[in-house]
Amino acid sequence: MHYVKHITVSSLFSLTFCVLHFPAASYTDSSDDETSPRDKAQVNTHGSSDFCVKNIKQAEFGRREIEIAEQDMSALISLRKRAQGEKPLAGAKIVGCTHITAQTAVLIETLVALGAQCRWTACNIYSTQNEVAAALAETGVPVFAWKGESEDDFWWCIDRCVNTEGWQANMILDDGGDLTHWVYKKYPSVFKKVRGIVEESVTGVHRLYQLSKAGKLCVPAMNVNDSVTKQKFDNLYCCRESILDGLKRTTDIMFGGKQVVVCGYGEVGKGCCTALKALGAIVCITEIDPICALQACMDGFRVVKLSEVIRQMDVVITCTGNKNVVTREQLDRMKNGCIVCNMGHSNTEIDVASLRSPELTWERVRSQVDHIIWPDGKRVVLLAEGRLLNLSCSTVPTFVLSITATTQALALIELFNAPEGRYKQDVYLLPKKMDEYVASLHLPNFDAHLTELSDEQAKYMGLNKNGPFKPNYYSHPFYYNRAQGNTALGKYRV
Amino acid sequence: MHYVKHITVSSLFSLTFCVLHFPAASYTDSSDDETSPRDKAQVNTHGSSDFCVKNIKQAEFGRREIEIAEQDMSALISLRKRAQGEKPLAGAKIVGCTHITAQTAVLIETLVALGAQCRWTACNIYSTQNEVAAALAETGVPVFAWKGESEDDFWWCIDRCVNTEGWQANMILDDGGDLTHWVYKKYPSVFKKVRGIVEESVTGVHRLYQLSKAGKLCVPAMNVNDSVTKQKFDNLYCCRESILDGLKRTTDIMFGGKQVVVCGYGEVGKGCCTALKALGAIVCITEIDPICALQACMDGFRVVKLSEVIRQMDVVITCTGNKNVVTREQLDRMKNGCIVCNMGHSNTEIDVASLRSPELTWERVRSQVDHIIWPDGKRVVLLAEGRLLNLSCSTVPTFVLSITATTQALALIELFNAPEGRYKQDVYLLPKKMDEYVASLHLPNFDAHLTELSDEQAKYMGLNKNGPFKPNYYSHPFYYNRAQGNTALGKYRV
Amino acid sequence: MHYVKHITVSSLFSLTFCVLHFPAASYTDSSDDETSPRDKAQVNTHGSSDFCVKNIKQAEFGRREIEIAEQDMSALISLRKRAQGEKPLAGAKIVGCTHITAQTAVLIETLVALGAQCRWTACNIYSTQNEVAAALAETGVPVFAWKGESEDDFWWCIDRCVNTEGWQANMILDDGGDLTHWVYKKYPSVFKKVRGIVEESVTGVHRLYQLSKAGKLCVPAMNVNDSVTKQKFDNLYCCRESILDGLKRTTDIMFGGKQVVVCGYGEVGKGCCTALKALGAIVCITEIDPICALQACMDGFRVVKLSEVIRQMDVVITCTGNKNVVTREQLDRMKNGCIVCNMGHSNTEIDVASLRSPELTWERVRSQVDHIIWPDGKRVVLLAEGRLLNLSCSTVPTFVLSITATTQALALIELFNAPEGRYKQDVYLLPKKMDEYVASLHLPNFDAHLTELSDEQAKYMGLNKNGPFKPNYYSHPFYYNRAQGNTALGKYRV
Amino acid sequence: MHYVKHITVSSLFSLTFCVLHFPAASYTDSSDDETSPRDKAQVNTHGSSDFCVKNIKQAEFGRREIEIAEQDMSALISLRKRAQGEKPLAGAKIVGCTHITAQTAVLIETLVALGAQCRWTACNIYSTQNEVAAALAETGVPVFAWKGESEDDFWWCIDRCVNTEGWQANMILDDGGDLTHWVYKKYPSVFKKVRGIVEESVTGVHRLYQLSKAGKLCVPAMNVNDSVTKQKFDNLYCCRESILDGLKRTTDIMFGGKQVVVCGYGEVGKGCCTALKALGAIVCITEIDPICALQACMDGFRVVKLSEVIRQMDVVITCTGNKNVVTREQLDRMKNGCIVCNMGHSNTEIDVASLRSPELTWERVRSQVDHIIWPDGKRVVLLAEGRLLNLSCSTVPTFVLSITATTQALALIELFNAPEGRYKQDVYLLPKKMDEYVASLHLPNFDAHLTELSDEQAKYMGLNKNGPFKPNYYSHPFYYNRAQGNTALGKYRV
Repeated sequence: MHYVKHITVSSLFSLTFCVLHFPAASYTDSSDDETSPRDKAQVNTHGSSDFCVKNIKQAEFGRREIEIAEQDMSALISLRKRAQGEKPLAGAKIVGCTHITAQTAVLIETLVALGAQCRWTACNIYSTQNEVAAALAETGVPVFAWKGESEDDFWWCIDRCVNTEGWQANMILDDGGDLTHWVYKKYPSVFKKVRGIVEESVTGVHRLYQLSKAGKLCVPAMNVNDSVTKQKFDNLYCCRESILDGLKRTTDIMFGGKQVVVCGYGEVGKGCCTALKALGAIVCITEIDPICALQACMDGFRVVKLSEVIRQMDVVITCTGNKNVVTREQLDRMKNGCIVCNMGHSNTEIDVASLRSPELTWERVRSQVDHIIWPDGKRVVLLAEGRLLNLSCSTVPTFVLSITATTQALALIELFNAPEGRYKQDVYLLPKKMDEYVASLHLPNFDAHLTELSDEQAKYMGLNKNGPFKPNYYSHPFYYNRAQGNTALGKYRV
Repeated sequence: MHYVKHITVSSLFSLTFCVLHFPAASYTDSSDDETSPRDKAQVNTHGSSDFCVKNIKQAEFGRREIEIAEQDMSALISLRKRAQGEKPLAGAKIVGCTHITAQTAVLIETLVALGAQCRWTACNIYSTQNEVAAALAETGVPVFAWKGESEDDFWWCIDRCVNTEGWQANMILDDGGDLTHWVYKKYPSVFKKVRGIVEESVTGVHRLYQLSKAGKLCVPAMNVNDSVTKQKFDNLYCCRESILDGLKRTTDIMFGGKQVVVCGYGEVGKGCCTALKALGAIVCITEIDPICALQACMDGFRVVKLSEVIRQMDVVITCTGNKNVVTREQLDRMKNGCIVCNMGHSNTEIDVASLRSPELTWERVRSQVDHIIWPDGKRVVLLAEGRLLNLSCSTVPTFVLSITATTQALALIELFNAPEGRYKQDVYLLPKKMDEYVASLHLPNFDAHLTELSDEQAKYMGLNKNGPFKPNYYSHPFYYNRAQGNTALGKYRV
Repeated sequence: MHYVKHITVSSLFSLTFCVLHFPAASYTDSSDDETSPRDKAQVNTHGSSDFCVKNIKQAEFGRREIEIAEQDMSALISLRKRAQGEKPLAGAKIVGCTHITAQTAVLIETLVALGAQCRWTACNIYSTQNEVAAALAETGVPVFAWKGESEDDFWWCIDRCVNTEGWQANMILDDGGDLTHWVYKKYPSVFKKVRGIVEESVTGVHRLYQLSKAGKLCVPAMNVNDSVTKQKFDNLYCCRESILDGLKRTTDIMFGGKQVVVCGYGEVGKGCCTALKALGAIVCITEIDPICALQACMDGFRVVKLSEVIRQMDVVITCTGNKNVVTREQLDRMKNGCIVCNMGHSNTEIDVASLRSPELTWERVRSQVDHIIWPDGKRVVLLAEGRLLNLSCSTVPTFVLSITATTQALALIELFNAPEGRYKQDVYLLPKKMDEYVASLHLPNFDAHLTELSDEQAKYMGLNKNGPFKPNYYSHPFYYNRAQGNTALGKYRV
Repeated sequence: MHYVKHITVSSLFSLTFCVLHFPAASYTDSSDDETSPRDKAQVNTHGSSDFCVKNIKQAEFGRREIEIAEQDMSALISLRKRAQGEKPLAGAKIVGCTHITAQTAVLIETLVALGAQCRWTACNIYSTQNEVAAALAETGVPVFAWKGESEDDFWWCIDRCVNTEGWQANMILDDGGDLTHWVYKKYPSVFKKVRGIVEESVTGVHRLYQLSKAGKLCVPAMNVNDSVTKQKFDNLYCCRESILDGLKRTTDIMFGGKQVVVCGYGEVGKGCCTALKALGAIVCITEIDPICALQACMDGFRVVKLSEVIRQMDVVITCTGNKNVVTREQLDRMKNGCIVCNMGHSNTEIDVASLRSPELTWERVRSQVDHIIWPDGKRVVLLAEGRLLNLSCSTVPTFVLSITATTQALALIELFNAPEGRYKQDVYLLPKKMDEYVASLHLPNFDAHLTELSDEQAKYMGLNKNGPFKPNYYSHPFYYNRAQGNTALGKYRV
């Protein structure tokens, strides 16, 4: 009898530890093989060797991850179905440089399903999911990427995508501008055939605007970073979902009754505050902007100066987009056990540098969790060394990535199919109508049913029945660059 | 013993009825005197007779209402204090045409405290609080207004404000454009001295833009209807506060567990949904715009077509800005006891006209509450005959009116003091910095403390330490004119 | 053109005042007729004069109010339908003494529909809705009650119900114990035929327990005050619904950002806090009981001493069941404009007596709203002179009254039909199964569908498939008498 | 430049994976050493070998975990301080059998600080944190426990605690009853000196009640499982905190807009629903009990039958305490990707057995996450094979464990110091006053300040100023055993 009990018990502690091991169990390749992929000869089951990944044998595991991702990316799946007969990307030769993850794989395979040929490389030397890269290579997409590339590897991979005999790209999908930069620098003649660039990141968009300003942009470019769906959904909802997750995974904190100060009440701050308040935390706000401050008041948050409350706080969260929002002086005044983290941008919001001084002891208690110990024994709990908490310590919902990926796909289709002259050599925002189309493709996920305007109503409102329902300047990028605080800018790139 | 009990009891029902009588007790003049104010000779205690109100003897009661209003309008009181030494309106001669209420009186008395001379009339024949008008007249402000004016009275009052011997206006504060229209028509020479017009309403703003377009606008005009603070706070928060109040006062409905459909998920719809969900209603949404629909999904509301759910609903609320959103066919399908009301704009969202047909019986059960009875005995409860619920059946918080009044005061100060040439003969939005100043004046109400940027931080953000923190195109009026649905536009005027 | 505009405009202010008049418009009899009903000869349209109400001609208006109430009392309507064939109260002669309102009328007419004969009087000299009493009298129920009875009238009415030739009551429905007291005192022999007493109020229940303890209770009595449905729903949900309503109707306060302290975190306090927090107020709590205090913490409220926060508060609400929770000293320290009110019990929670001193000026600004003015001009806004806010200044949802009325009906049926010996001469709580039956009768209002246990599941849980699902001691009355603070106890009676 | 970028980037994906590795990094001993601890000779730095743990060298790491736990267990730390002079456990010889975790270590070290001598063993063969056991052994507490004991090891360890030369226990702290059982069976004479047993688990409490009923209980026993603080806080708040965490860690699900059905609206269900609704899920409820169903309605949840909604649901969560609440038939009807999990008790709520049939394919996609694949390709995502989600896949906040540990410490002090005759040979609940004391010890965590009754108020309420404020029968265990569904019962033991 007892034997059975001990075997079947849902033991609190053993299982808790188990679950946290799982990625170790899943992604087993990290330590097994030190050979550089560039030195390996690999062939997929179809006989092709036009790829370079860590280990083609991991393809099956990667396929499973892709299938899981597909479940929350039904917008792309639906796009495949709607456009499959038509093949709107037939003839497109897309070279891509993005994070290579299960979600990206769903995008790439959608592009292929729509008729495109793709070659792909990674925009970051660490972010490649090797198994996913293997799965893509196995199905015949030439992928050049692995986790832990050197910088030399990084440019070699990009080059292998672009510089291919018998294949020349006519579309570019970039995330960060490195691919575009390489083509500009090494193979400028490629641009003669390229119909357009789709760019995802702030950094890349910034470079494109500079090129445009300098009169050097030689093809149309689409700025998808500033599309409505990305801006409206990434910040508010993504932070609402991830702040709790990031804090729990690192500290196992109980939210009920915790005193929390959130610095900045832009979209990111609003998302964090909504979630924390809902789970029973007592939240107050710091703001520089009286309009955001008044919103915080009306939403039921006390608006304070950080120095007024710092001694009482259990958690301090920065969401400002500014620097040195939490200073050493304030860190000195925090109470024992106070948790400090950043949901804003880059890693300057908390003055972490000031903590690297001889009188303070750093103790790494868990991955991404440091105790900073003062001479009197007081500990402050610093998460992710002040980098973005949600990217460092939680996951980003596939659904949000689906919105981005769908926007990229539509931007590619638009640029590839646009009649001569619709787009000049300039940087464009996605037309509002396509933004709305991206949103509408995600509604079936929620079994949401849109109402259609009657002719009479459309006339009364002065709208087309099929949209756009918002004017083109709705959600203007510059707004997000500024006082709202943090935001997605800088989130997916430094 | 029993005697005491019965006398002191907080009886549920008797007192409930008492409280609802109070305005009758407070505003006692409605039926007492049928003489037209134009035919009465009245003198205030200072010997002046330069006014025309219902009954100067009501001044004391009106003063009390003004004092109550002052408690929630501390921004204006604070403006009085800050600017009192300086007298920024010294020399200003303001003629005003607005609703005359306790809140307006606080504005007028603020203008006077800042150095202005004022003459005032009503922009609406019904909205004057006679006691407040009396209180203003008693302190020496020439007021020409009473509740229940004829149209002839209306224009006579305006004329008495403008056409005064020995006094010529140099500033106009208008709400609806009637005053401006009258001056254009009758006394165009007045504009030679006028430094500017401040206009509150959609209608009036629309007329000004038309004048401007036609090249006929001969002084600068400030559009305060579209200021950020008004747009951002009026819709979301005002509707969040008033939807519950409007429903309770008319129907005594219990919110818990009620099935509610809200048509339109713009700012007004968001405000309504937030409040209703918070009090335990089960809310679903209809939308035409996929982006708003996706927001509704993420916020936890089912997005449906009205026809799919109409049979189950306990309450139907329109917030669309559109017409015939609730049709006769849908009214036919509602269940017995369903409540139907409008929080959007004008009175066309519910097809009320279709209910005025012989087979249906209307029964007025309370003021603003009609039972429409179908031949089979089914009753639908229609509130305010489909006009705006919150304006018809609830109150608007003084705090919201304070934001508007403060904005008007600042606009007057700005136009009156602007150096030659800053403003041309055009229609202007309030500079963003002044919008932020309005917000900041309201923060002390909440004991809110703003954080100030350090020099280093301001430089890092590319901002001036004192703002503006938002670019000028933040909150663009056209956006609000469109698909978001209703909004303040048209709320305070038809 | 302008004429039309002014006539059709949904004017903010005029309509606001209109709506608040409506009860005056509806209940028109208050001032019209000073003759005592006892001195009038009245006959209903069926020729009966066995009643005494204010004015039998008001019957039609009262009937409309009853019909409105029926819409939210579908449990009783459904009880009528289910039990109509069976007539479980055939032969019952019920004498009742309760508030006489539209909701009570629905109860009485249900009892009649189930076969009972009823005679009715009021338990409170102020609470009778004259029109409803007339409507009941018109249909043949002998009602003896009007609003504004003298104490002599009160007992005369009770006597007319009991002391009737040719009719002797065999059931008593009492609310406060006055009817029971009268029968004990004047007509003790009536108890020979009485099968049971159903008592609603704390006071009445207390008297019954005393009689029982003294061995003088000569029939079974049912305590419906302490039924689960009443206790669980009245306090939490009723206060959640009414706190906002009570504050709005008296003060038009905006909730967003208001600093509120709620004294007591029992069920009443929890209900208030939930609603206020949901609408954007910033709420803190005072508590004497560490367990309730810990719940408040976990629910996201700061737990403070009143003296620590009193200076900052915008609103102070007492929900303790205790006395002098807000003292004169604390009233002295409140800021200008602070609103003080009581949601707890009786009228002792705020030390109102201490405010009736010469140095303070009382100014009645609206019905139920007094400004207490300190020598320095500071005003505190006292609502309902410290009596229960929700009973004085808001309405109680019909749905909650439906739960109580249904419980009374079932208690009458149970006592009338119980086999000899099931109930002794003692005070009983409603059997848990009947409590659950009351709940289940209210589920169709929400279109709620209960799940039924399978035989296997019922066996596994050790439960009968039809309930009871809660043990009999669930929700014990004594608990509510104590530290939880306020509660329904004493709510409907002093 | 690029190099720097790639090195410092907060890469989304690489770091996400890193963090999930951390327990692997921290608890490094799982695979390194296969020798049984019983076969090793180990000595701590003080020269003692009276213990048996996995590896005494892990003591330092374990100490750090204990220190982290202390930060959220300030109630115990405060108890140490308050009682340290007095040493209320001087002379106590406590033998304990519980989970051995950092939180337990804080308890044990508190007991030692209060004067007790302790010997300790594990109540579960899997749950021991080896490093913590080492840290305890290092400081001189004889601990006999390691992760992964055999059943023979399990009883050997218990025996080594009890059967010690020169030391005889006079207090027992048990969790599950195995230690008590062993003493009864092997060393009954020990009970002559034992002053009492403190038992934590449902199973152990059940055994004690059986012994008591059979007249075989020979010492007083304290049932701490049913203390108010445990019951009131464990279920509602713990589930509110853990449901989101459990779902995120296993599935990375986005909550916004997800359709969720929660089976059972007891405390556990209420906790789950609160959190899910707050994060934007659309939640409906199934219930068997009309009273809980009515609460769900009033709280804003649709009450449905599972079969009515099963096709639309994204997530199905059981919280009933019943069996086969989710049947194979319902699993067959779920849509592709539906997540199914259990927050109730044991592992029978979902009919997992029915899924182990040949036509279905199980695919383990992550630890604790299985895809069950139907022949048509549909996948259902089953978490933790239907065992308790929060114990299997999330962590339990230290704060909740602190409440339990504090209660255990107080129960030991009470039993050890009770005067002869206060406790007989029976099972007792903790006196209400001590429950309240446990709560009050946790208030400083929240900086909460209790209000004290004045003498006059205490008299008015009929309460002692120092409590108890709740009667003894408040929170009765039987209630929780029944219809409310799940609960802590059975949570920490099967």
